[in-house]
Amino acid sequence: MAYKLYYWSGIPGRGEFVRMALEEAGAAYEDISLQKGGDQLVAQFGKDPKVLHPSFAPPFLQDGEVLVGQTSAILLYLGPRLKLTPNDPAQALWVHQIQLTIADMVDEAHDVHHPIGSHKYYEDQIPEARKRAKGFRKMRIPKYLAWFETVLSRNPDGPDFLAGGKLTYADLSLFHLIEGLKYAFPNAMKSALTEVKHVPRLCKAVSNRPQIKAYLKSPRRKDFNEDGIFRHYPSLDKRKA
Amino acid sequence: MAYKLYYWSGIPGRGEFVRMALEEAGAAYEDISLQKGGDQLVAQFGKDPKVLHPSFAPPFLQDGEVLVGQTSAILLYLGPRLKLTPNDPAQALWVHQIQLTIADMVDEAHDVHHPIGSHKYYEDQIPEARKRAKGFRKMRIPKYLAWFETVLSRNPDGPDFLAGGKLTYADLSLFHLIEGLKYAFPNAMKSALTEVKHVPRLCKAVSNRPQIKAYLKSPRRKDFNEDGIFRHYPSLDKRKA
Repeated sequence: MAYKLYYWSGIPGRGEFVRMALEEAGAAYEDISLQKGGDQLVAQFGKDPKVLHPSFAPPFLQDGEVLVGQTSAILLYLGPRLKLTPNDPAQALWVHQIQLTIADMVDEAHDVHHPIGSHKYYEDQIPEARKRAKGFRKMRIPKYLAWFETVLSRNPDGPDFLAGGKLTYADLSLFHLIEGLKYAFPNAMKSALTEVKHVPRLCKAVSNRPQIKAYLKSPRRKDFNEDGIFRHYPSLDKRKA
Repeated sequence: MAYKLYYWSGIPGRGEFVRMALEEAGAAYEDISLQKGGDQLVAQFGKDPKVLHPSFAPPFLQDGEVLVGQTSAILLYLGPRLKLTPNDPAQALWVHQIQLTIADMVDEAHDVHHPIGSHKYYEDQIPEARKRAKGFRKMRIPKYLAWFETVLSRNPDGPDFLAGGKLTYADLSLFHLIEGLKYAFPNAMKSALTEVKHVPRLCKAVSNRPQIKAYLKSPRRKDFNEDGIFRHYPSLDKRKA
């Protein structure tokens, strides 16, 4: 039976981290965001009192009787099923820890354009967003990139993957995170990426994997835009200061 | 061999969610924050290139050969060992999903006093903090509390626990989250807690568990303060608007 992925239409969003794993594995899945009325289905789903495990927010994934929300928990569940998690439990936990750190950076990238709150439009928090963006560009991007680089350089199996000698869902997530950051902060990322070597190599290798290459060219891959997590506002990506 | 918990001294912080689980289980653990020079040890630990799984930030836990960071991943690891995770894998995943949602609210509670970034003092972002606090009090606290209440009310085993008929680490985490929010936002929480019934009942039950009761009275339990995640600044907890 095909997996069902529930997420908003029109943006890659957090759902994209799940899509990346499903696409790499060539798994059969139904993407609710592509259905007519999908957004309403996503919004209404958890309101049914028969849903015992309602998700606080999308994405959530249905696999027969199992319903699971929270991007990192979805990947924890899918990983072994899609062969994107190491068999060794300690390594699997490490992959999950990396994923949770990626998720933290995703949250921070979102909050750059919504420092005051998600209930207000970006246009109502521009001065605050500019302040937050400065710290994100100067401190947070370099700090996270340095951590990913350290993780890759310390991998005893070599720097081709974040953990072990085989692709995991964390590698796919890092690729998508970097893509999102490059879209949102092209100037800051151009500069920050010169400080690391393994991270861009991994991203390039992911983009060249046959399944991912085909997916990225397909209409299933949604473009980044200014309704999503990674938004390009030039004033948040100044060349200087 | 005793677990070693690495976290900053002087604040409950994210380390407290791990402590709650260890204390409930009566597990032997060494709390590095209580050691002289503990903070330096925490700060330096991951810099050693022999540490293959460096944590992006504390808390992290050492259990013999295993080193794990990210609060939710630490609890995922400890849960079965401390008998604070259901045996059924689908239920264990649900507990983890709840924990990740608690972690999201913890992040938001932190960002109320640091909307512009952690690299600046609260005193340098007060006007922005006031704006963010308003949305947090009016929208986010009620939304999260309603979700926890829904989770409890839909539990087929009854509303005493978030998942199943036995205590899990998520119950302990919810207790600590609510304690932190009550400390930081006494006015907002007084009002918000009148809208739910199962959440305060669960919190009271947790506080009355023998191990937890003893722990809360012990010097090992750190007080909330204005260096931590949950900070009480009266101007961020106005009675009205």
